[in-house]
Amino acid sequence: MASPLFLDRAPPLRSPGRGYAIISVMKVSELGEFGLIELLAGIASRQRDGRLIIGIGDDAAAWRGDGAVQLATIDSLIEKVHFSLKTTTWEELGWKALAVNLSDIAAMGGAPGYALVSLALPPDTDVDNVTAMYRGMMALAEPSGVAVVGGDTCAAPLVSVTVALFGSAADGLLTRSGARPGDQVAVTGYLGSSAAGLEMLTRQLRFDPATGDYLRRAHLRPVPRVAEGQALSARGVRAGIDISDGLLADLGHVAASSGLGARVTAEQVPVHPAVREAFGEQALEMALGGGEDYELLFTAPAGIMDGTRAALACPVTVIGEMVAGKAGEVCLLEKGRPRAAGRRGWEHFRTQA
Amino acid sequence: MASPLFLDRAPPLRSPGRGYAIISVMKVSELGEFGLIELLAGIASRQRDGRLIIGIGDDAAAWRGDGAVQLATIDSLIEKVHFSLKTTTWEELGWKALAVNLSDIAAMGGAPGYALVSLALPPDTDVDNVTAMYRGMMALAEPSGVAVVGGDTCAAPLVSVTVALFGSAADGLLTRSGARPGDQVAVTGYLGSSAAGLEMLTRQLRFDPATGDYLRRAHLRPVPRVAEGQALSARGVRAGIDISDGLLADLGHVAASSGLGARVTAEQVPVHPAVREAFGEQALEMALGGGEDYELLFTAPAGIMDGTRAALACPVTVIGEMVAGKAGEVCLLEKGRPRAAGRRGWEHFRTQA
Repeated sequence: MASPLFLDRAPPLRSPGRGYAIISVMKVSELGEFGLIELLAGIASRQRDGRLIIGIGDDAAAWRGDGAVQLATIDSLIEKVHFSLKTTTWEELGWKALAVNLSDIAAMGGAPGYALVSLALPPDTDVDNVTAMYRGMMALAEPSGVAVVGGDTCAAPLVSVTVALFGSAADGLLTRSGARPGDQVAVTGYLGSSAAGLEMLTRQLRFDPATGDYLRRAHLRPVPRVAEGQALSARGVRAGIDISDGLLADLGHVAASSGLGARVTAEQVPVHPAVREAFGEQALEMALGGGEDYELLFTAPAGIMDGTRAALACPVTVIGEMVAGKAGEVCLLEKGRPRAAGRRGWEHFRTQA
Repeated sequence: MASPLFLDRAPPLRSPGRGYAIISVMKVSELGEFGLIELLAGIASRQRDGRLIIGIGDDAAAWRGDGAVQLATIDSLIEKVHFSLKTTTWEELGWKALAVNLSDIAAMGGAPGYALVSLALPPDTDVDNVTAMYRGMMALAEPSGVAVVGGDTCAAPLVSVTVALFGSAADGLLTRSGARPGDQVAVTGYLGSSAAGLEMLTRQLRFDPATGDYLRRAHLRPVPRVAEGQALSARGVRAGIDISDGLLADLGHVAASSGLGARVTAEQVPVHPAVREAFGEQALEMALGGGEDYELLFTAPAGIMDGTRAALACPVTVIGEMVAGKAGEVCLLEKGRPRAAGRRGWEHFRTQA
């Protein structure tokens, strides 16, 4: 679908000097919508899939269905809301736009399959930047088994990238409502590194190269736990969520959906040594509420939990337990004493507490 | 996924006077992201589907798959690009955001099933407006057999609504590449009415109430040809597209994908009498290039074409034919003579010819 722009917002005239223009500074207004779609289709079409019937270039993508559970999720990254082009490269934007959706499929225990991309761009965007964004997306799509099979593009005042991602799963999904009283609560990897990366980028902090690179990647090139989610499902785990809003907020979502409370021991929350070194006491706050970690939080009885450690290649840390109690209430224990956790984690629209 | 807003763009403080506020002027910043999601889930959850496993409220939606062809499409409506809130009600915005996607599924000959909605809103948006938008979407979703099963919401400077829609189809899709030389080219309904409606709204033209209502609905409450698309597929039609960019542009897409040329007779293009009456000679230009009609354009041999008229309840008009020739070239015949058609129809990023 493409719709009439109001004419007073029409993009600038095609540059009369285009014959002499250097290709690397071509604007999307010179290439046009259909030229851009063709260019992006060329980048995306390298993937092959025996079930795909129609990819980019028709009214809808089409593939052969099967009897498995079908999964679908959608997420948008909007300029000046979710990212700034002052601190994010176009490659990183493409990577992350897919990553946040992969993480949602991972959090169900599913395998991702097909992606659609809705792209809004100012007309004076360099074509090279758009292709860089697609290359960044493909760099994550290909090893993740994702084919980009369609989308739409339009002119807009700000850059926004919305990805809808489809996947499938065996029975035995990881759901937010699957936690049971007495379940242990565990997380993959380290928490707070993404928030530390954002802090470094927005405050223009300088660290040694290894730390700087780790923090930047944690925030802008997260690697979702797709294989880990499937392994958890196969091992009998039935409750999970990805940590996007922040540990305490996301655990609160699981607790609320499961009709339970939860307890977390602050000292057990895994913080990367580089983050602790760089941010001191602030590191724990970042781990508890920073969000955008794209690690998995899951709950399981102790017997199943023990098995998951052997099955997962990444660190798995038990940080607390699910308890009978007020639905959605998360109690944080620090030095053995309950600390008011407050509302933590990111919530759109509201001012943060 | 929800991500850290940069704090200098944080939404305004919760109104201290909320205890006295009238519910109808509550802002989304007062309700918060999770409150808004809960409210919208309540509006969306009225649909039931035996295959749905998980709807709104988990990391991804989940449903039981089958062996049919799976279809997926995505489209965004962005404020000040695709619509103005000065001329579009929130109900109409919700309706149209779903309609443009339904039309893409219709253009494949498919049946729509599940929708995800990614919603960006300024924090000072009235909650009532958001619920009105969802009601508008549900007013079209319910009779169309669509369940809204998930999405995301975030704060942003402008309103944008992105819908990803999944459907299924029997074998025998209507594709852009399915046209054959000698096929007749036909369209459903009338063309140009949506462009006429946009013209009326942006230039604040006044017409008699029946004409005004018809034009407004044509632009803001289009009814996609979902049943018609499936009927065409069942009758053996194999090439189709929905008219969103404009008749000549969309016929050009079919011609290019099929490696053919096409001829259109201007006098045969169906224009609604009210549009002809209101806009005179401009009416034909609207029908040829205005776009956003969300009617179906399809091609078929004469024998199959005759059968489609009986099968479809709406007007079906043969307007031309597919011919061997330069791929994608559309020749417009007016008073028996070829007229340079130029590039017509809407293309994002480019200035219109």
